[in-house]
Amino acid sequence: MIHQILREKSAQFFLMYAVRDDVNFYYATKFKTKNLALYLIGEDGTELIVVPEMERRRVERESKVKEIASFEDIGYKEKLKELEDPKKALIETIVELLKTHKAKKVLIPYEFPAFLTVQLMREFEVEVVENPFTRIRTVKKRDEIENIREVCRGVIEVFDTLIKNFKFKRCEDVRTFVETNLFSRGYIAEDTIVSTGKLSADPHYIGFGEIEDHLVIDIFPKSRTHGYYSDFTRTVFVNRNTELEEMYKAVVEAQKRAIEMIRDGVDARDVHTEVKQTLEDLGYKTTKSEGFIHSTGHGIGLEIHEEPRISDCSVKLKSGMVFTVEPGLYYKDIGGVRVEDVVVVKRDGCEVLTNYKKFIRLYK
Amino acid sequence: MIHQILREKSAQFFLMYAVRDDVNFYYATKFKTKNLALYLIGEDGTELIVVPEMERRRVERESKVKEIASFEDIGYKEKLKELEDPKKALIETIVELLKTHKAKKVLIPYEFPAFLTVQLMREFEVEVVENPFTRIRTVKKRDEIENIREVCRGVIEVFDTLIKNFKFKRCEDVRTFVETNLFSRGYIAEDTIVSTGKLSADPHYIGFGEIEDHLVIDIFPKSRTHGYYSDFTRTVFVNRNTELEEMYKAVVEAQKRAIEMIRDGVDARDVHTEVKQTLEDLGYKTTKSEGFIHSTGHGIGLEIHEEPRISDCSVKLKSGMVFTVEPGLYYKDIGGVRVEDVVVVKRDGCEVLTNYKKFIRLYK
Repeated sequence: MIHQILREKSAQFFLMYAVRDDVNFYYATKFKTKNLALYLIGEDGTELIVVPEMERRRVERESKVKEIASFEDIGYKEKLKELEDPKKALIETIVELLKTHKAKKVLIPYEFPAFLTVQLMREFEVEVVENPFTRIRTVKKRDEIENIREVCRGVIEVFDTLIKNFKFKRCEDVRTFVETNLFSRGYIAEDTIVSTGKLSADPHYIGFGEIEDHLVIDIFPKSRTHGYYSDFTRTVFVNRNTELEEMYKAVVEAQKRAIEMIRDGVDARDVHTEVKQTLEDLGYKTTKSEGFIHSTGHGIGLEIHEEPRISDCSVKLKSGMVFTVEPGLYYKDIGGVRVEDVVVVKRDGCEVLTNYKKFIRLYK
Repeated sequence: MIHQILREKSAQFFLMYAVRDDVNFYYATKFKTKNLALYLIGEDGTELIVVPEMERRRVERESKVKEIASFEDIGYKEKLKELEDPKKALIETIVELLKTHKAKKVLIPYEFPAFLTVQLMREFEVEVVENPFTRIRTVKKRDEIENIREVCRGVIEVFDTLIKNFKFKRCEDVRTFVETNLFSRGYIAEDTIVSTGKLSADPHYIGFGEIEDHLVIDIFPKSRTHGYYSDFTRTVFVNRNTELEEMYKAVVEAQKRAIEMIRDGVDARDVHTEVKQTLEDLGYKTTKSEGFIHSTGHGIGLEIHEEPRISDCSVKLKSGMVFTVEPGLYYKDIGGVRVEDVVVVKRDGCEVLTNYKKFIRLYK
């Protein structure tokens, strides 16, 4: 795919620059960056990873890239001695690397840092492109789906334990229970949303204080082993609140219709439109800041939010894409509700990886 | 500080662009970004935060920035409808925002993304500068030091419990013990290094398998409450290995001399030189890939690696800077050793926040 893009753009090289824990870099090279690293792919067959010398042996063992150089190898130390400025030395080292490879036109991804972009533009023709790995990562391979499936299973087990042992009075205690249980099973969850009352109308408010009628519990753990995420939300009714329960019924209905539509070839925008229309039809108005105020979903994988987005933008769904379907309704004088599941797109439909009942009422 | 830079550079605006969990953005605005956000500071007194509409109420409650706009407010939705491309719509929205504010010259930080950099350069004079907040963050305020001190105390307590109950046969079991204990105290640690044998010669190898003579245990937890880090390493001798113990004595001696030098006004480079010289004098040669192959230390705070670096580059140490002092020695046919503590620079010296004995021998 990258060679095809290089040809289409008449460019000789695609250059990635990573600092700590870069997901595209890891996906492309199987090397977990702990500090600075470069990855250079050339139309001439170049596939080079550049790391600090102290990382070389780790790259040799862990990366699938065979051509390895250290920054020291390509002259960084000398440049640093000469320029006494790490940023300038780095820029000159990279410019020289590209010149040695006879680069004329270089492709860089959207997220490439400005300090290098500006200097590369002085020396080469530069074009900014979507990182091909961002696109490649949208369609999951079999082992990636199994990784996500495993995390989904973990989150459901912990959520089920929570519900069966529910005895909490405060949002933060629910969060601690969920995160501690996930951790002991090998998953890390941070900023788990456990929001109640009217402030649950802010979708990303993580929630504090005494539990009122309902809880929006949104859990998005990452495996400590393989790094893949899950993302799961249920709205739980601790005490009866008919207005919120009616809202929740509507989002569950909207989610059901969305999931029924999802299959290879469908446009994600149509799925989002269906969710919007369903909520509208059920009487829930959306204004600028209230109602259904976010997109229908987002891809998950090595990142919690990645492509594809299930939103107003057209994206053709493909078998193997994994994303959330998470309609919500938010009114500042009432509160918010949301339901969220993870699905994998199949040829004739989709598979839900977070199967769990939608309606949870803890009151009698 | 930012206004001073704007004046010096004859620029009207400094623009920050953040995606998820941006540390400078959080430091500057006290708002935890969960998705896209902008922060615009102008010489005319502008101080504006731009977020998705769904985040507005959270910004109003959590951020210290008073002027808030949503992307919807500044025309993003219309642009998206017109252009049908989220990146292009975002670019045009931001260009228009700057034009409305009559920007001619705009400063952007090193890490600003390429896709926006290139377009801003077409419309404005653009200069890439170090993010002022990266610099400001190097000198910690009193409450930041207390946060780091608390995490240091947590890591020492867990390490002490580990040593007093040591009964492990495998690296991964030590890691699980440390990370689980830290988690239950409110800290998250990932990829804790517990390396043994010859592979410990790779400083960032996290370690697997049966424990041989020694362990390099490097723990860098983050508080789940306030987000500040600690970073602590000891080399533990499980069985006698004179060669490695001699190496460890040398790094402990080098660390001692470094710590004795650290005080307000000293050049970090001189500290690094002292460490290099001490190890050299004690007979430990450094080649390109073996010996003392990394810097002496790095700042810690809201990031595990931040400024200042204690390396070959000149940096004047200031009271309130917090960083690690972590000499190590690595030889591929022997293995690696490292000792690491966190210090705060004071007017007349420095305070060690991770006080714990250096020599730990578990054999009789």
